[in-house]
Amino acid sequence: YAPKPMKAKMKLVKDILSRPAVVGTIKMSITEASRILIENNINHLPIVDEKEMLSGIITSWDIAKAMAQDIGSISEIMTKSVLCATPDETIDMAARKMSRNNISGLPIVDSNNMVVGVVSAEDISKLIGRTGLNKI
Amino acid sequence: YAPKPMKAKMKLVKDILSRPAVVGTIKMSITEASRILIENNINHLPIVDEKEMLSGIITSWDIAKAMAQDIGSISEIMTKSVLCATPDETIDMAARKMSRNNISGLPIVDSNNMVVGVVSAEDISKLIGRTGLNKI
Ligand SMILES: C[S@@+](CC[C@H](N)C(=O)[O-])C[C@H]1O[C@@H](n2cnc3c(N)ncnc32)[C@H](O)[C@@H]1O
Repeated sequence: YAPKPMKAKMKLVKDILSRPAVVGTIKMSITEASRILIENNINHLPIVDEKEMLSGIITSWDIAKAMAQDIGSISEIMTKSVLCATPDETIDMAARKMSRNNISGLPIVDSNNMVVGVVSAEDISKLIGRTGLNKI
Repeated sequence: YAPKPMKAKMKLVKDILSRPAVVGTIKMSITEASRILIENNINHLPIVDEKEMLSGIITSWDIAKAMAQDIGSISEIMTKSVLCATPDETIDMAARKMSRNNISGLPIVDSNNMVVGVVSAEDISKLIGRTGLNKI
């Protein structure tokens, strides 16, 4: 009876990272941000400033909020204190961050705070979908 | 060295089902549907007909689509052929359905095709967040 190799438990964020990062800017309209979400078939849009540094995040849920509350600008709906992860974090750690903070995605930033991708709850669920619980 | 109990692998949809089911109707406006998503902090809204039978699904991604393409009614943006799961399906199976079809949630229906809840990729990711990969 061979124990599972340790490696299995250590699956990292970079193993499931979707690249290249699709990002938006704070100057976009909500309609433009919506278009980017739809064209790329995604739910999370990290928002960067002129220096490509992360300054917020917009999700399709925020777009629904704008619709529900008749809000007109990205800066009003974007979440400004963004929880992130790094490519070398474990997937367990990323999943824990999302679950504890009740969020559905994390921008992945490198050591210069540049956005290199996003990992979403959907990506993590896909892992389970591909391999099954307990078999990863 | 004790093998994991079989039970672990057999975790079922009903174990993580969020109840009661929040549903919308085809007569709602997109703004009303958005409000329900926001008030309940959810991303998926099964749409039912007068007999409470499932007839479509709206997600916050569809709301973003309505915004991007200036579409005005629920019936135009809802997805009509809805993939579902049952309470007694395994979570693995539900995750596989989502992953294969690139969707992030499944209405859970009983044997009468009544919606009893939703299971989302976020719910599955939360399982991982609580217990870690390989430890469920
Ligand atoms: C194809 S996904 C793309 C974005 C992302 N993968 C997600 O699921 O949010 C978005 C579409 O999937 C549809 N959808 C979501 N759950 C569904 C389900 N259980 N059955 C059929 N369509 C569904 C939504 O109505 C929406 O139009």
